[in-house]
Amino acid sequence: MASVHSNNEELETKEMDTRSMSSSRNHSQGTPYIHKVGLPPKQKLFKEFTNTIKETFFSDDPLRPFKHQPKSRKFILGVQAIFPIFEWGRGYNLLKFRGDLIAGLTIASLCIPQDIGYSKLANLAPQYGLYSSFVPPLIYAIMGSSRDIAIGPVAVVSLLLGTLLQNEIDPTKNPEDYRRLAFTATFFAGITQATLGILRMGFLIDFLSHAAIVGFMGGAAITIALQQLKGFLGIRKFTKKADIVSVMQSVFQSAHHGWNWQTMVIGASFLTFLLFAKYIGKKKKNLFWVPAIAPLISVILSTFFVYITHAEKNGVEIVRHIEKGINPPSVNEIFFTGDYLAKGFKIGVVAGMIALTEAIAIGRTFATMKDYQLDGNKEMVALGTMNIVGSMTSCYVSTGSFSRSAVNYMAGCQTAVSNIVMSCVVFLTLQFITPLFKYTPNAILAAIIISAVINLIDFQAAILIWKIDKFDFVACMGAFFGVIFASVEIGLLIAVSISFAKILLQVTRPRTAILGKIPNTTVYRNIQQYPEATKVPGVMIVRVDSAIYFSNSNYIKERILRWLADEEELLKEAYLPSIEFLIVEMSPVTDIDTSGIHALEELHSSLRKRDIQLVLANPGPVVIDKIHASHVANLIGEDRIFLTVAEAVSSCSPKLVEEA
Amino acid sequence: MASVHSNNEELETKEMDTRSMSSSRNHSQGTPYIHKVGLPPKQKLFKEFTNTIKETFFSDDPLRPFKHQPKSRKFILGVQAIFPIFEWGRGYNLLKFRGDLIAGLTIASLCIPQDIGYSKLANLAPQYGLYSSFVPPLIYAIMGSSRDIAIGPVAVVSLLLGTLLQNEIDPTKNPEDYRRLAFTATFFAGITQATLGILRMGFLIDFLSHAAIVGFMGGAAITIALQQLKGFLGIRKFTKKADIVSVMQSVFQSAHHGWNWQTMVIGASFLTFLLFAKYIGKKKKNLFWVPAIAPLISVILSTFFVYITHAEKNGVEIVRHIEKGINPPSVNEIFFTGDYLAKGFKIGVVAGMIALTEAIAIGRTFATMKDYQLDGNKEMVALGTMNIVGSMTSCYVSTGSFSRSAVNYMAGCQTAVSNIVMSCVVFLTLQFITPLFKYTPNAILAAIIISAVINLIDFQAAILIWKIDKFDFVACMGAFFGVIFASVEIGLLIAVSISFAKILLQVTRPRTAILGKIPNTTVYRNIQQYPEATKVPGVMIVRVDSAIYFSNSNYIKERILRWLADEEELLKEAYLPSIEFLIVEMSPVTDIDTSGIHALEELHSSLRKRDIQLVLANPGPVVIDKIHASHVANLIGEDRIFLTVAEAVSSCSPKLVEEA
Repeated sequence: MASVHSNNEELETKEMDTRSMSSSRNHSQGTPYIHKVGLPPKQKLFKEFTNTIKETFFSDDPLRPFKHQPKSRKFILGVQAIFPIFEWGRGYNLLKFRGDLIAGLTIASLCIPQDIGYSKLANLAPQYGLYSSFVPPLIYAIMGSSRDIAIGPVAVVSLLLGTLLQNEIDPTKNPEDYRRLAFTATFFAGITQATLGILRMGFLIDFLSHAAIVGFMGGAAITIALQQLKGFLGIRKFTKKADIVSVMQSVFQSAHHGWNWQTMVIGASFLTFLLFAKYIGKKKKNLFWVPAIAPLISVILSTFFVYITHAEKNGVEIVRHIEKGINPPSVNEIFFTGDYLAKGFKIGVVAGMIALTEAIAIGRTFATMKDYQLDGNKEMVALGTMNIVGSMTSCYVSTGSFSRSAVNYMAGCQTAVSNIVMSCVVFLTLQFITPLFKYTPNAILAAIIISAVINLIDFQAAILIWKIDKFDFVACMGAFFGVIFASVEIGLLIAVSISFAKILLQVTRPRTAILGKIPNTTVYRNIQQYPEATKVPGVMIVRVDSAIYFSNSNYIKERILRWLADEEELLKEAYLPSIEFLIVEMSPVTDIDTSGIHALEELHSSLRKRDIQLVLANPGPVVIDKIHASHVANLIGEDRIFLTVAEAVSSCSPKLVEEA
Repeated sequence: MASVHSNNEELETKEMDTRSMSSSRNHSQGTPYIHKVGLPPKQKLFKEFTNTIKETFFSDDPLRPFKHQPKSRKFILGVQAIFPIFEWGRGYNLLKFRGDLIAGLTIASLCIPQDIGYSKLANLAPQYGLYSSFVPPLIYAIMGSSRDIAIGPVAVVSLLLGTLLQNEIDPTKNPEDYRRLAFTATFFAGITQATLGILRMGFLIDFLSHAAIVGFMGGAAITIALQQLKGFLGIRKFTKKADIVSVMQSVFQSAHHGWNWQTMVIGASFLTFLLFAKYIGKKKKNLFWVPAIAPLISVILSTFFVYITHAEKNGVEIVRHIEKGINPPSVNEIFFTGDYLAKGFKIGVVAGMIALTEAIAIGRTFATMKDYQLDGNKEMVALGTMNIVGSMTSCYVSTGSFSRSAVNYMAGCQTAVSNIVMSCVVFLTLQFITPLFKYTPNAILAAIIISAVINLIDFQAAILIWKIDKFDFVACMGAFFGVIFASVEIGLLIAVSISFAKILLQVTRPRTAILGKIPNTTVYRNIQQYPEATKVPGVMIVRVDSAIYFSNSNYIKERILRWLADEEELLKEAYLPSIEFLIVEMSPVTDIDTSGIHALEELHSSLRKRDIQLVLANPGPVVIDKIHASHVANLIGEDRIFLTVAEAVSSCSPKLVEEA
């Protein structure tokens, strides 16, 4: 019969697209041909194990270029992998240098005033900020693979470090131990970063979700801005706490006698100038350099102004003293023993992770914009090494800066050489210019920091998060309010907890859906999403939208039985035939564990007691493997496991389908 | 053209099944009709929120029977919901009582010797075990909804409680405070259980996976059996630690002088008797009562034997003293203030959770066997209340016992009345018989405990776990070795950590698969699972097997690009046309968050730079909603989002399909 028929069909072929032809040829053979669900080729246990390891830790296949290469070439590739400068350095030329030079000078002019301000956030003397913009960028330029990132101290990490260190040692009473703990934390931040990279555990930083970062950054920005009120208003007695309540109390308590109007005038006028410069830079993309050099201009103008008017005698706080000369060695200052070792380690791990998150996020953003690949694990090794070396040369935790990297990109940087240029400028500054900063008013630094961190408050992103995912928004707001009302660490903790809770919720209470047939197709879809989809009489089709694990196996079993009870109640009310087959569409079930197998068994026996046949549709490779490994395949019956829902429906009960 | 055609087709209808007909009618209209991906009806934010809450906490729809009922009926239903005895009590009759009486007497004969032994595991005097088999079963009988569970102290919880309490207070030096802490822990175990039930957080106990429980129980059984060597060999100086290394050292160190041969003879002969009774019970199901009463017979025989031979004067340790009379009140003994409050709380939470896990697992098992529904949250309230009342009447943590529940079931119990019968027998024992236990040798109790816990070692289950899921097996073995080599808590911690790590691994490194077309169908499946599936030239189809979240969005993006790079390399070597379309099959993608949306954007822009078009197939309701809420739908193009992979393939490039 089939052969007679195929003639008929050939006539039609031209008008039917090949796809439907093959499908109809298939089913026109009287009894429809049923496809068996494929059992994937058995893998050796060892192979399965190595595959899992490979996907988990080496998902980027880092050894790929090494394949089929002679030994000498492998060595060169290995050196280039650790020091990418040997790779891109060979193609370096004057034209590229021109771009890097301009970009480097621009970010240097931006980083010098920022560095001085940020070191205050970390409760360190101003020169430590500059030190951290000298050595780390040089190390990164040799080992890093991002072309656009600008290395140095950043506001959020400085604040975080300052808060955490202050919990252990009072920086005003015991500045030396405080500094030593800072270097210790920096050392362990570097160790953490490099270790994560070497062990290829870089994916751990992915656990801080985008939403959490947006909230955390926004909260940190506001906290930092509030901290600047001290310098901005010229308050002398200021709280040590960073939460909004303490800070605002401190501000209002000193309102009557503690504010200094001269400071406020200087601060406000230059903040206006800086914000205006920012506005110009935003309006006209080719004027990006205006906001970039505005801070340096503010510093020069205000320093000169204070110097000639001697405003410092009227209570305008000035920087007073910056150590001259480049980084002194600090290996001996790191605590390698004693009580502070553990504390430094703990702080270092947290600061290192946050610094890493920021740097990798920046690196990835620009890599996507210029379409090059960034190896996260390699980056981590570079950032880690840079901080380890930094901790030995009087630097505190450096990382990639959002604002300076953006300027670097817009100024046309080509390679990491722009970081070297910046580093050279900082070197010259340290050697020759630092004494000139003596009269720089603190209010200017406050204004510069405020104008810098304002960018970290990303309203647009928060609105988008609200639109896309309400749960993400809760994580975002949790981080935001956690940071501003409690502390940086608590904000982080809240964000991470909410993000994890979301994953667990999804794994504990996965979605299930009742499927119906979309008219004129063989496609079965969620009847909520496709209201035109129709149910097949006597058959209930449930899709389980998750791997079936111990955490959800009971829920899934009970949820399916509840769908069934609901459905049967409806059918009874309408005097319709009751359910005879329950098809579980398993396409989204990517994995199943022993608890899941037990749930299937229990579902099967519950259904059998009600004279309902359990049918499975399209189990994936892992699932079908496990169904066969246990005795569930025999229990349900091999012939009750189908490739598609459509085949399951037609096979279960062809009569029912015709009626439909 | 379509109308002309439909005539042609009608001729064929009889020989084609309806399904393929509707599909071919669809596609024979020259240009194939494309189905739009349904956008689910917009839900109000509040409704979405309440739905999530409902699915998470009220997934069993507990208020369902209350719907459309008059007030008086609602009240009765409410009372019945809290005290199920009013529900099943109305249908109770003599026939049922006959079953319950026999079952109750059988489990009583089993529980009395077990209770005395288990209280030793908890480092408490023997009467406390009996107390715990008197009050809690009565409370459970009124409030519990399982018909088969037998309530009382159990081996694993006794051991756990003993270990945890011993860490805080030495039971030999300070027995009174130890006992008080035990009641405090019991109180908080009850509070924990009831609170979980009332807050409907019962799903938390699902986080202890089946595999972890199998390993944990096996390890605990071995630890308990090893502990019995003290009583079994008559060793006087025995280690306080429970790990296998300490215990074996203790055993061998006392081998030369510390073992007592009379004790060993009594212990070994009765252990043989008990194991033989077990064997008989296993062979012939209707002789189930033989192993059930064997312990009591052993106790009676051995007590009588010691009494007449005065073996206790030859170093055979005996029970010596059991307090006569029923439970004294102990409300005043609970620590409601002070240091021990927090400690008792901590221990109570852990013990309460483990006790809960055991009871719910038993309840579910028997409910499935007899096909009735068990409300986990309601059970928790019952178990919690029972332990709270227990803590005030000198009981320690009670729960459902595996072994006694099985005997209860086999003896033909009908309702919780069997627990009441058991409780009455324990009452009589406490009032009249306890002095007779004076001469019971400890070796008998050790033998009874060993023969009871042997059942907890489930080799079959471990083998099945190994077959089904290697990762589960690691969790199982982690729990097992953790318990026997370190301690009960560490074993638990290992099991829970591994189980969570598995979930996180799945969420961090989800599977992706390349799909091919299964010949003669419109079905696209994993080419690894279906080697006969063929790739479509110029098109790469990737299926993502997980929700796309912050934890995996980067990995998924990079993995897809790596699939692409691999594929293009292959095509280049074979001089085949390069990829023009990348179809992402999103059926298993049950959810996406903001990080996932960003990953899609980045994937899209990466592909555009390579002149490859991104196409999405079958996004689910949540995903399509979020794709529309963000601007990704416009970015990719509405017309690039299809209902099925087949439609995506044919629409993208009908020419390519014809070539295939």
